[in-house]
Amino acid sequence: MDGVLADIYGQLIRYELQSSGTELFRENLYGQDEIVAFPNGRTHANEKGFFRTAPVIEDAVDTLKELSQHYEIFIVSAAMEFPNSLEDKYHWLDEHFDFIPWKNIVLCGDKRVIRGDIMIDDHFKNLDYFDGTTLLFEQPHNSEKDNNGHRRVRNWKEIRDLLL
Amino acid sequence: MDGVLADIYGQLIRYELQSSGTELFRENLYGQDEIVAFPNGRTHANEKGFFRTAPVIEDAVDTLKELSQHYEIFIVSAAMEFPNSLEDKYHWLDEHFDFIPWKNIVLCGDKRVIRGDIMIDDHFKNLDYFDGTTLLFEQPHNSEKDNNGHRRVRNWKEIRDLLL
Repeated sequence: MDGVLADIYGQLIRYELQSSGTELFRENLYGQDEIVAFPNGRTHANEKGFFRTAPVIEDAVDTLKELSQHYEIFIVSAAMEFPNSLEDKYHWLDEHFDFIPWKNIVLCGDKRVIRGDIMIDDHFKNLDYFDGTTLLFEQPHNSEKDNNGHRRVRNWKEIRDLLL
Repeated sequence: MDGVLADIYGQLIRYELQSSGTELFRENLYGQDEIVAFPNGRTHANEKGFFRTAPVIEDAVDTLKELSQHYEIFIVSAAMEFPNSLEDKYHWLDEHFDFIPWKNIVLCGDKRVIRGDIMIDDHFKNLDYFDGTTLLFEQPHNSEKDNNGHRRVRNWKEIRDLLL
């Protein structure tokens, strides 16, 4: 969800500007881990409303809707670190991805417990343990790292071309 | 979680008594599906606080704590039908099972997406799709049904004897 459907970088940049007046630019954050790029990120991520008002990543809604005609899609989010996010994430999905039924939403801690055929994720810690096909969704924090055996995709149009 | 760690029957009986004055007795509910046994159950389950104040099933805490010395335990709860329950369930687990780290909590809709070695659950709809060993935790709604290939356990002492 975060970094694949929800534009968490955009949201963190917005929160940082609002709270400290510091303006960060996405293009300066390439190659940095999120914790380095956003020292106040964990504080913001635990605020009620942070995930509820996050922008949607470009083409995610249309592509996922199209994919859902051909695949059974589960939205799996590592949300448990931020308990204040749980209901926000549910309602965010209900607003933007209302074609995904509640049965297919998973809010978890560690994604090692998830099975499926294809996993699209921006973090190696999730993809590395997955049994099926893996797609590494590019985000600044993984942009300068080795693919580690995963296929890198840069946007939802690429995913569409691969999977449809 | 529900019907295995949390005594949802006890909580539904309490809510029914408080809301309508009707006193239900667990022993009269054997063999009935929950939806039949508790016609107002879905309404109660969607109230804030319902899952937060549920009683814990006997011996669940001590046994799970002991098991956690030998197994990696994930708590997987089909919570998504009741979005008001999400944060309540997180905080309930944090109160009663604080030895389970947040990384090992999963709140989902459909448990078909879960993998693991052993699943303990009171519902066939969850156990029937699981790839590993399955333990059917007895609750009134499943008490008169065929085991459907799962091993039936009646309480946490039985689970302790099986797994330790």
